[in-house]
Amino acid sequence: MGVVVQKYGGSSVATAEHIKAVAARVGRARRSGLGLVVVVSAMGKTTDRLLRLAGEVSESPSPREIDQLLATGEEQSVALLAMALHAQGVDAVSLTGPQAGMKTSGRYGSGVISEIEPGRMQKLLAEGKVVIVAGFQGMNALGDVMTLGRGGSDTTAVALAAALGADRCEVFTDVDGVYTADPRIVPEARRIPVVSPAEMAEMSWRGARVMHPRAVELGALYGVEIHVRSSFHEEPGTTIIGGNELEELETRETLAGIVHDLDVSRVTLTGIRTGPGTMSRIFTPLSERGLSVDVIVESGPKEGTSDVAFTVSRGDYGEAKRLAGAVAEDLGGKAEGEEELGKVSVVGTGMLNRPGYASQMFSTLGEAGIPIRMVSTSEIQVTCVIRAEQVEEAVRLLHRDFRLEERDV
Amino acid sequence: MGVVVQKYGGSSVATAEHIKAVAARVGRARRSGLGLVVVVSAMGKTTDRLLRLAGEVSESPSPREIDQLLATGEEQSVALLAMALHAQGVDAVSLTGPQAGMKTSGRYGSGVISEIEPGRMQKLLAEGKVVIVAGFQGMNALGDVMTLGRGGSDTTAVALAAALGADRCEVFTDVDGVYTADPRIVPEARRIPVVSPAEMAEMSWRGARVMHPRAVELGALYGVEIHVRSSFHEEPGTTIIGGNELEELETRETLAGIVHDLDVSRVTLTGIRTGPGTMSRIFTPLSERGLSVDVIVESGPKEGTSDVAFTVSRGDYGEAKRLAGAVAEDLGGKAEGEEELGKVSVVGTGMLNRPGYASQMFSTLGEAGIPIRMVSTSEIQVTCVIRAEQVEEAVRLLHRDFRLEERDV
Repeated sequence: MGVVVQKYGGSSVATAEHIKAVAARVGRARRSGLGLVVVVSAMGKTTDRLLRLAGEVSESPSPREIDQLLATGEEQSVALLAMALHAQGVDAVSLTGPQAGMKTSGRYGSGVISEIEPGRMQKLLAEGKVVIVAGFQGMNALGDVMTLGRGGSDTTAVALAAALGADRCEVFTDVDGVYTADPRIVPEARRIPVVSPAEMAEMSWRGARVMHPRAVELGALYGVEIHVRSSFHEEPGTTIIGGNELEELETRETLAGIVHDLDVSRVTLTGIRTGPGTMSRIFTPLSERGLSVDVIVESGPKEGTSDVAFTVSRGDYGEAKRLAGAVAEDLGGKAEGEEELGKVSVVGTGMLNRPGYASQMFSTLGEAGIPIRMVSTSEIQVTCVIRAEQVEEAVRLLHRDFRLEERDV
Repeated sequence: MGVVVQKYGGSSVATAEHIKAVAARVGRARRSGLGLVVVVSAMGKTTDRLLRLAGEVSESPSPREIDQLLATGEEQSVALLAMALHAQGVDAVSLTGPQAGMKTSGRYGSGVISEIEPGRMQKLLAEGKVVIVAGFQGMNALGDVMTLGRGGSDTTAVALAAALGADRCEVFTDVDGVYTADPRIVPEARRIPVVSPAEMAEMSWRGARVMHPRAVELGALYGVEIHVRSSFHEEPGTTIIGGNELEELETRETLAGIVHDLDVSRVTLTGIRTGPGTMSRIFTPLSERGLSVDVIVESGPKEGTSDVAFTVSRGDYGEAKRLAGAVAEDLGGKAEGEEELGKVSVVGTGMLNRPGYASQMFSTLGEAGIPIRMVSTSEIQVTCVIRAEQVEEAVRLLHRDFRLEERDV
């Protein structure tokens, strides 16, 4: 019997009615003869509510206790979904992460899956039961529950699909797939039927938060076929396929789509003396404070000094600028910055082999009078940092000039 | 270091403010040098809310899934209390029932504690940590969480006290001890400083729901000294002591108090043929449906037939009368009943050796014109079933005639 792993996010199980709808969908899949493992997140705003309670009893709650607390959210969802399946005559058993054999290591609040002991799940599947597993959690070597951090339920689902040798992993969300651009900005945007894991990871990071990149990477590593689908209808969605299978697809387009992000600020250190270790001096204090840096640009030495610019999210701007300012002063320069920025990216496999994409992008932005603050390129994307207020216009123009609305889906 | 087990019920941890107040109290006890294990129930109405959700997704949710769901309530409380203790500078660790080594057997929803592996708790206590344990739950042989049913958190606390050889078990509630009668009915009622486990068990069953009798029995079995105290102030409350220690107390009174219960109905089978196995024929169908029978009276054979009467709670009256009616018909008789009844009991050690108590009770009720429907006696109580509307008056008169308000507490 083929096994499929399905994952439903918090908004798909927000109320008793939602849970019954998920149960109906799972029941249909089961009756079609599939072996099913279903990963569920906490109901709607449960996690937020629990975190608020934690904040009311303690200003700095311990990560272990936060994990003990938050794990209960998913544990409630799985039990309720099992009951709803029973009510529809479907045999099902709920398992917490520890019960499902999810072993974790790392730090509380950001655990990583170190091993999965699938024995109990396999036994239940062989008995014809639907196995419902709490996402976002596992058990560490101390026997304590641990949460997996952001994107945890997606990661649980993909890891289970790998451990069980599942045919595929279906991730149900409130969007119906990955689009060539955000449909709220570009009404002509088309659903992309197939993307590579690398493209998907870029698109996730850069604003198209359909699925967590960590889960996408894990899927690529273990060759798990991931389907991103809407929980509200039966349309096929977007499939993430890696390796040879992808290259064999004749219909495959090289350019996947345009993604954007409005939460960008830039800090620039100007006129600093550079030498070996300068970059480390600048970025070590930032990483020690847990500040994530995205695009980094160094404009090479000129009269013995150099400029280094980087982007952070707006929430981190103040602290990043302060830390960079201290380093810049030590190095004879100063720090300045710009807060209200955004990013727009053209994402597709093999971008560097097709310089035409980058130049088309620059000319589209240039003709529209949109100044480019920073540029960053990789094998699968070209990103321009521009003023936040010009991001939507840039997305529309790039979607038009790359003729993405002409895609035959 | 002496170890004390404290137990706080759901109303004591109903909100973040309540949890902080419990943390303050636990912190004071810890600073006085005690080793502390704290058992906590689910917050306020959490269990009711979860059961309502279960009812929304399924008409007859499976007991295993109900246990998976309900266990999360206590798991949230322990994590939050640990955080609140940390915020007050007290080192503490929360443990779920399974983490604390609570092993259970029996049926989901009404598990019994089969064993406690105290190793992890002992290690944490030796490190000076306050150990916070989720009440009402343990792990069965399958590795699944199981709830203990009614009175479960009290039972957890007493069992832990026994397993850890604790000095005492302190049960904090919203009342400040056990009284000679319900103070809402008898304003002159006095707090009883010391009761025996048997008296306490009788008082719990018969309306004074301060502590579950199952926990009281367990305490008696293992010689655990139980203190029932208010969570709102520092007064001493009522101590439950068994065995020789109790008999050595000179101040000990024989009569503990008057308790009552307004939730009583009576079913009577009249004119039935009796023989070996008749009682079993009557009561087996009731126990198979899970109906609890309290007082049973048989008025011996008269012209070959007999009358058998028993009491049940009002919620079970209809079903009990229907089942009894079917049996009565087979035996050539019929079933009748009375729904709006109550019980009043005089509770104290060695009642049967002091017939004066029973006769005083009958004369008090007789003088007040209160008809007695049924009588039941045991070593430690005399109970009269009377009309529900006369129960409060009976409690006041008995409290007066037994001079309980003259107690020197």
